[in-house]
Amino acid sequence: MTSFRSLWDEIAPIGRDPGSGGYLRYAWTEPERQLRAWFHTQADRRGMSVREDGNGNLFAWLGDPGRGDPERGDAVLTGSHFDSVPQGGGYDGPLGIVSAFLAVDELRARGVEPRRPLGVVAFAEEEGARFGVPCLGSRLLTGALDPGRAAALTDRDGITLGEALGARPAGADPELLARIGTFVELHVEQGRALAELAAPIGVASAIWPHGRWRLDFSGEGNHAGTTRMADRHDPMLTYAYTVLAANKEARLRGGHATMGRVAVEPNATNAIPSLVRGWLDVRAADAATLDGLIEAVAARAADRAAGDGTAVRLTEESMSPIVEFHGGLTARICTRLATQTGVRVPVLPTGAGHDAGVLSGHVPTAMLFVRNPTGVSHSPAEAATDADCEAGIAALATVLEELACR
Amino acid sequence: MTSFRSLWDEIAPIGRDPGSGGYLRYAWTEPERQLRAWFHTQADRRGMSVREDGNGNLFAWLGDPGRGDPERGDAVLTGSHFDSVPQGGGYDGPLGIVSAFLAVDELRARGVEPRRPLGVVAFAEEEGARFGVPCLGSRLLTGALDPGRAAALTDRDGITLGEALGARPAGADPELLARIGTFVELHVEQGRALAELAAPIGVASAIWPHGRWRLDFSGEGNHAGTTRMADRHDPMLTYAYTVLAANKEARLRGGHATMGRVAVEPNATNAIPSLVRGWLDVRAADAATLDGLIEAVAARAADRAAGDGTAVRLTEESMSPIVEFHGGLTARICTRLATQTGVRVPVLPTGAGHDAGVLSGHVPTAMLFVRNPTGVSHSPAEAATDADCEAGIAALATVLEELACR
Repeated sequence: MTSFRSLWDEIAPIGRDPGSGGYLRYAWTEPERQLRAWFHTQADRRGMSVREDGNGNLFAWLGDPGRGDPERGDAVLTGSHFDSVPQGGGYDGPLGIVSAFLAVDELRARGVEPRRPLGVVAFAEEEGARFGVPCLGSRLLTGALDPGRAAALTDRDGITLGEALGARPAGADPELLARIGTFVELHVEQGRALAELAAPIGVASAIWPHGRWRLDFSGEGNHAGTTRMADRHDPMLTYAYTVLAANKEARLRGGHATMGRVAVEPNATNAIPSLVRGWLDVRAADAATLDGLIEAVAARAADRAAGDGTAVRLTEESMSPIVEFHGGLTARICTRLATQTGVRVPVLPTGAGHDAGVLSGHVPTAMLFVRNPTGVSHSPAEAATDADCEAGIAALATVLEELACR
Repeated sequence: MTSFRSLWDEIAPIGRDPGSGGYLRYAWTEPERQLRAWFHTQADRRGMSVREDGNGNLFAWLGDPGRGDPERGDAVLTGSHFDSVPQGGGYDGPLGIVSAFLAVDELRARGVEPRRPLGVVAFAEEEGARFGVPCLGSRLLTGALDPGRAAALTDRDGITLGEALGARPAGADPELLARIGTFVELHVEQGRALAELAAPIGVASAIWPHGRWRLDFSGEGNHAGTTRMADRHDPMLTYAYTVLAANKEARLRGGHATMGRVAVEPNATNAIPSLVRGWLDVRAADAATLDGLIEAVAARAADRAAGDGTAVRLTEESMSPIVEFHGGLTARICTRLATQTGVRVPVLPTGAGHDAGVLSGHVPTAMLFVRNPTGVSHSPAEAATDADCEAGIAALATVLEELACR
């Protein structure tokens, strides 16, 4: 049986920046095409038939979901995505696909036969790093994104998604979705919760609700040399105070608040800015906490603006409601894993979006997490040990055995 | 005699953005060429001969400094610059040139004749808005800037200074400088000091020393959604704290500190930054205060970085020492103005650089300021009343009478 390490080493060099060790695996670029070719090879090795769904998503099937009774919807799907953020880590996405193929091997090694169609999926453009829309492939498949609108999306070189894909996306495929009974995505953890619990594997409870706000701090542009401190209306002060206040309020409330993007006018060393535009990314376990956090930040920004003689205006740019994964499926998985391993598996929420979040509106969906000792994500510092990856593959095989082979 | 308003209205529309009311008068562009043509017309009207010095600086002379005894160095020069920052005010620079021509008229109206050569100057590219080097013309004239280096400076369209000027700059002219006995620049005030003193006119004591520092705040780039607050090393927090600390330390010490420019990596809404680069502009009345201010900001940034798990590194980008204007000349001007008007004239420092600061290393130099009721500078909100401008012209005429006609 192929070891995790030997299969991992087949894809590890693809799209890796030799300087930083970070990955540049954008959808439909050369590195991602190599990964897709590798996907075909893996499917062939296991006697699985590959289909592309017209939205850039690749499926390798053991058994034919198309010949099953569409009313039954009994197919079991697992997988993740190949594409990366700029200078991302190697595990985010590909670990779920590599683990899926190795879990198929593990089922065979255990001598169990799938009784239902079993598929491995590689979703397209999950990170949104090329065309700006995360979970692009799964959104097209589920009808959450209009194929005409998607076809016109452009990358930074002006290439449209339609050109990259070679055709207008096919869009929603309700027939295929109806045939999928369950979807399970295995993913490297993007924080340190499992590391602190000393647990190699976890199960997802939910994806936190997530808001993005733009904050426009306006003041009076002026000369840095000649304007007395008392005469200033400096919006950079209001911005800076709000950055610290957002951090403090998030800590107090158990949410996440990040202000990682800023734009300044005129952005000159010798000029008091006239405008500082900051973006606030807020996430929390529930909508009430999220709303309370945003209100607290807004109130503290407005208080400070009054003192600084500046003004602040908040604009909601997006709001993603909570995704709660299928309770029955998650409980079944936890019970099965605890029985198999003799250890309770932690159930934890995540702050990140995933194809599993998109699928969960249409198909009973669950997620498995593999411990990340650094807790770092979207960076070459992202990590997972081979032993934990092997534990993840064994757990995924157990879950697939439970869902597809009984 | 031409009134201030009628002469001012001749140039007021040139280079003005009709939308904002701000000025776009970059050196050697069409608006500035129109202003230079206007300069020739004004000189002709007054029987003054115009010379260009090969560095882009225009001189209109009444009497010939070239025929005087170079050892005497008795010529009296006044003037300022035409060019503006992007979307600047209309007074910063041009008021000194318009006032110079009207002061010549005023001397004639008073019936006094210059006994020494009297010149009006329009220095080139004082703001540095096109080629990035402030006081470009006066630096070339005094030899502070190498003409070969200057010729190669490029604007944002890739045009070199040599191309804009039509030739390599002539560089230092020590012979001309030796013939100038005194230089007086009249300038709109860039703060509210005169407004608070209810004084239409002031005299400069000094230009504050001025430092520019780059602060690199480095942390750990990470996922905004999944990284727990306690696990973050977010350099934006250290930056924000330092912005507030710099402001507070400047207030406590009576200096000026501004952080108006920032660059972030990766500068994405959903990413904790790996690097925040901020720039600190610091000015104070003396070098000791300036050094103390920088040290205090550096210490507070380092303290906060230790708490945030980030790092901060400070790099000095430039340091301009204090310019103290000629004490004897300034005292003589103040005495003369007080005698003339019956009111003591405030003597005040400025935080801004000027051609007068460059000239003062070579020629006894003084500056007059005209009250700016808004105190705003480098913005269309910059202001001066006609009555104050007329008071400035009368004061400049009195100063020229004192220096050139006795």
